[in-house]
Amino acid sequence: MKNIVVSASRTYDVLIGQGILNDAGALMRERISSGTAVLVTDDNVNALYGDKVENSLKNAGITVHRFVFPSGEQSKCLEVYGRLLNFMADAGLTRSDALVALGGGVAGDLGGFAAATYMRGIKLIQIPTTLIAMTDSSVGGKTAIDLPGGKNLCGSFYQPHLVICDTTAANTLPPDVFRDGCGEVIKYGLLKSPKLLRHLEENGLGFDRDYVIYKCVEMKRDIVCKDELDTGLRQLLNLGHTIGHAFEKLSGFTLSHGSAVAKGIAVMAESCKNAGICSKECCDRTVALIEKFGFDLRGGYDFDSVMSCVLSDKKRSGGNLTWVVLEDYGKSGLKTGSTDEFASFIKSGVLKWK
Amino acid sequence: MKNIVVSASRTYDVLIGQGILNDAGALMRERISSGTAVLVTDDNVNALYGDKVENSLKNAGITVHRFVFPSGEQSKCLEVYGRLLNFMADAGLTRSDALVALGGGVAGDLGGFAAATYMRGIKLIQIPTTLIAMTDSSVGGKTAIDLPGGKNLCGSFYQPHLVICDTTAANTLPPDVFRDGCGEVIKYGLLKSPKLLRHLEENGLGFDRDYVIYKCVEMKRDIVCKDELDTGLRQLLNLGHTIGHAFEKLSGFTLSHGSAVAKGIAVMAESCKNAGICSKECCDRTVALIEKFGFDLRGGYDFDSVMSCVLSDKKRSGGNLTWVVLEDYGKSGLKTGSTDEFASFIKSGVLKWK
Repeated sequence: MKNIVVSASRTYDVLIGQGILNDAGALMRERISSGTAVLVTDDNVNALYGDKVENSLKNAGITVHRFVFPSGEQSKCLEVYGRLLNFMADAGLTRSDALVALGGGVAGDLGGFAAATYMRGIKLIQIPTTLIAMTDSSVGGKTAIDLPGGKNLCGSFYQPHLVICDTTAANTLPPDVFRDGCGEVIKYGLLKSPKLLRHLEENGLGFDRDYVIYKCVEMKRDIVCKDELDTGLRQLLNLGHTIGHAFEKLSGFTLSHGSAVAKGIAVMAESCKNAGICSKECCDRTVALIEKFGFDLRGGYDFDSVMSCVLSDKKRSGGNLTWVVLEDYGKSGLKTGSTDEFASFIKSGVLKWK
Repeated sequence: MKNIVVSASRTYDVLIGQGILNDAGALMRERISSGTAVLVTDDNVNALYGDKVENSLKNAGITVHRFVFPSGEQSKCLEVYGRLLNFMADAGLTRSDALVALGGGVAGDLGGFAAATYMRGIKLIQIPTTLIAMTDSSVGGKTAIDLPGGKNLCGSFYQPHLVICDTTAANTLPPDVFRDGCGEVIKYGLLKSPKLLRHLEENGLGFDRDYVIYKCVEMKRDIVCKDELDTGLRQLLNLGHTIGHAFEKLSGFTLSHGSAVAKGIAVMAESCKNAGICSKECCDRTVALIEKFGFDLRGGYDFDSVMSCVLSDKKRSGGNLTWVVLEDYGKSGLKTGSTDEFASFIKSGVLKWK
């Protein structure tokens, strides 16, 4: 088991290892004194790991109340959030108790936001079971639910008190969900690790999971510690996301997050190449890597619809927008400009992958 | 105009003066760059000050979207919170925009929680118009809504970016609402200011509002800066509140907050006297002062109902409870014990004011 210590506004351990989900109770007990916990998970993950985690917590002397919600992004809403809060109140949870979020990004975001706001904040333990949650969403303290007007429009910055990342959980993912997480993994490589990109090029979907998850968490830790509240450097993590979120929304959220991000990265690579920000080779290798992982890049949306979505996206700050550009194969940077500048910059990429 | 600077996790000005609500736009403009603001207020306050504040903001070049909700504690709920968030999303508010909460504790708590969570936090300006909001709830960063299971069960610690406290707004309060705020004012005196208590004894409801509001904010500032997250000293501010919240809940929230706190303080004074923690004189003067302000102390609730409410109140931490005891007339302290110890301590007070 490895331990990456994150020193943000709260300092906490991200434990990474094989099979450690079965030791969740003891690992939690060593660090957190809560006597009662609500276990938040979706029906899919509950069937796989719900009993294991509950038993582990109980064996460590922790009283457990389990809240199971329907799997899928549509559960990241005010209605399920309200049900969860009322469930916690009915269970008599106090300020010193804990919430354990077990599952993918939805469990982590929804559970994290409930932990951040129930009695103005209780202990939060993230147990990610998807690749996307392990490498990205469980670390760094972004919690949120969606509003009809857009994704993640309501949430808090709230660092977890502990992350338990069992890399073997990725083995039980359906192939399309596993691939979905690879969108974020490729993103990390493009941000600042040519070495990670080479490993992904050489191994494709058969990459070394322990190595890759560890590297991604390490990079996320470095970025989050420098810019916890997402006012600068952390925006690098949005590579492919501004356009990706628009694709997700335009698909009525039938397009998965990772697929949308993969498409968003392809659009960005094409736009950067055409603007002379990155080389043709960088763009070609990026697209080839994305396709090697089996992402279908065809079938985007028309330019006006995409831009209309971007304008309602939360990344806007006043009239300006910050976006992430690919400068080289394994190096990205930030650019800020008006929405008009963004529109003209991104147009060729959106049209290419329309 | 006076300025009390609060240095918590965020540093901000609490501006206190007569008529300064009319300068809200300019005072905000000098400190905050937001180009757009949502103005959140209830229908009563809206009729009195909505146009004034909106015009002041507009004259300072700020685009305003006004959200008016039905006055009363019942609006501090998930449903109105959701409507407000969706209103903000529909208005296109971005991360750099602002929320102006105009009104009493409900507007401040509801608006504050929306500001804390919309896009994970936007600028928050509090313009309190009730005595209770001026002296207590607008300063210190506690925001919340109620759940069916109890008051303030869902919220955030989120310091405002500016507080504009127009002391003349208290002149337009209905007499019972003004008196309601005096419950908290008496509390501040009992916490640590014999001088404030003497001023209140001498002047009753005719006290010097500018002086008293300034003193209360100063005391609140001192406490909040030492314990922003309410894990120690800040719990002093709960004098009379543990029992008071139970009274509020048992009345179906028909009992006002200030009246409930006044009753709670009377219960505490009686219990402290009987336990030998404070003198008989301290208890008698406390009760006399509360009655001088016209609070009706008769008509409490039966002991078992009160304790059942206390057990579901959020002040509990695991099996223990922290409560505030009156040590002298103008001096209070904290005591922690089991819920059983609390029950036997408080019994004589609850029975006295049944």
